[in-house]
Amino acid sequence: MRIGAIEAGGTKFVCGIGNENGVIEERISFPTEQPERVMEQVISYFKDKNVEAIGIGTFGPIDIDPASETYGSVTTTPKPGWSGFPFLETVKKEFDVPFGWDTDVNAAAYGEAVWGVARGLDSCVYFTIGTGIGVGVYSEHKLVHGLVHPEGGHILPRRHPEDHFEGNCPYHGDCLEGMAAGPAIEKRWGMKGSELGIDHPAWAMEAYYLGQAVTTTILMLSPKMVILGGGVMHQKQLLPMIRAEVRKNLNGYVSAAPLLTGIDDYIVSPGLGDNAGLCGSLALGLAALERNGK
Amino acid sequence: MRIGAIEAGGTKFVCGIGNENGVIEERISFPTEQPERVMEQVISYFKDKNVEAIGIGTFGPIDIDPASETYGSVTTTPKPGWSGFPFLETVKKEFDVPFGWDTDVNAAAYGEAVWGVARGLDSCVYFTIGTGIGVGVYSEHKLVHGLVHPEGGHILPRRHPEDHFEGNCPYHGDCLEGMAAGPAIEKRWGMKGSELGIDHPAWAMEAYYLGQAVTTTILMLSPKMVILGGGVMHQKQLLPMIRAEVRKNLNGYVSAAPLLTGIDDYIVSPGLGDNAGLCGSLALGLAALERNGK
Repeated sequence: MRIGAIEAGGTKFVCGIGNENGVIEERISFPTEQPERVMEQVISYFKDKNVEAIGIGTFGPIDIDPASETYGSVTTTPKPGWSGFPFLETVKKEFDVPFGWDTDVNAAAYGEAVWGVARGLDSCVYFTIGTGIGVGVYSEHKLVHGLVHPEGGHILPRRHPEDHFEGNCPYHGDCLEGMAAGPAIEKRWGMKGSELGIDHPAWAMEAYYLGQAVTTTILMLSPKMVILGGGVMHQKQLLPMIRAEVRKNLNGYVSAAPLLTGIDDYIVSPGLGDNAGLCGSLALGLAALERNGK
Repeated sequence: MRIGAIEAGGTKFVCGIGNENGVIEERISFPTEQPERVMEQVISYFKDKNVEAIGIGTFGPIDIDPASETYGSVTTTPKPGWSGFPFLETVKKEFDVPFGWDTDVNAAAYGEAVWGVARGLDSCVYFTIGTGIGVGVYSEHKLVHGLVHPEGGHILPRRHPEDHFEGNCPYHGDCLEGMAAGPAIEKRWGMKGSELGIDHPAWAMEAYYLGQAVTTTILMLSPKMVILGGGVMHQKQLLPMIRAEVRKNLNGYVSAAPLLTGIDDYIVSPGLGDNAGLCGSLALGLAALERNGK
């Protein structure tokens, strides 16, 4: 089986071909410039690849409501040329195959549930903590869309008592993304997170915010696993600190073994590593093919 | 069609018979005493009623994982005699019909989606704000269980700047339930909410907390409707104040018409009124019957 996958990120696009076992056989990438230029490269890449389906996991916000007139478009984004761009339609008219279409984070959650660390589970929540914070939700065997799609990066955490940074989300100031995404760390401490020592107080503060986000996730969605990915999570000291925050916050209230005694296997790193995004898109393509009865 | 419904509340049990249109034909209720005494009354009520299925929506926390050994039991509760009680099993062995089994709030969410204000929608979130705060989640045509079930009453809101009440949740102190359920209002102000005037500052504070909870719900779950029920919501001045808080919190970020221009039809009161709980249980019974192919 040959399935096409498009991982559309805010900085770069990755296109690849994979099979039904989640194995990526080849890939290319190029910068996320103006959409016309990007689409030209996407179409030219897949032109003679003979794929049976294509899955797209993309930066957003996007329209994922099949009943909407603007289904398949990027909605509002500051990225030049992309606001309102009919992404799905542009690719679709070139290839007569089933298409999967979802957010990059929903794709990553799904990829982890199909081939990654959440393999076989019927729910998981995927966070990416990088230049922004995104949340993908897979629940009861379904990717959650609803009204738009989850935007959990913008929930409102309690301020750390020693934190005087005002927050840098243009919409909400001190929301989760405004306090805990990579640019917030850099602005608060005057240098990039990757340049701060592992004992720097930045990390206790970061764990405080991300611990609240995971706590909220558990209480609102009750997922069977929470996966934390993205550039900020390359700081390996963070994961155990976040688990400790979650245990402290829940204080034994949710009586489930994974939270009481197995939290190291419950709040985890992505199983697919750097392939999470592309594998997720591949999984969306495969699901689209299966829905079409092939 | 004759379907049995059990609404198991912390204070009282309601049993009833209804049909496939959500019409309750008869009902009785009795206090939630020791489980043996309650079960006797439940079983005696349904004995000669010839129901084709029974749906149970119950106070929790409960075990709703069909793969678990304790499926159908109440888990940990301070209510005398109920901790670990095999609720579902006790009723099931008396009646050879399909059973529906879920939390009271999931039942209410589902009832509203089948016959109530969210009729026809594939997602909605139901809050009850009373002696406690519970959250039921219906998403992508599924009731959300996951690891346990949502426990959204215990998320951690930001403290209102003028609020000095320490909170009264035994697990978390100043979590949502500890700050905004009925007993918190009474303890903070020294009298019951129902005795406070509609202009009392208690309500702005209450709206501040519930507005955060609804904002978090929208960002994490993206439901197509949020329904606010329970005794505290009988204060009719609250609903518009909560909507205003949500709009202020989101600040236009989630670009969807129901949030931008139609919030009065998006954050709403239950459509089934006082029947929400029993109708929800009825809907669970009907769904169980349908799953059994009848």
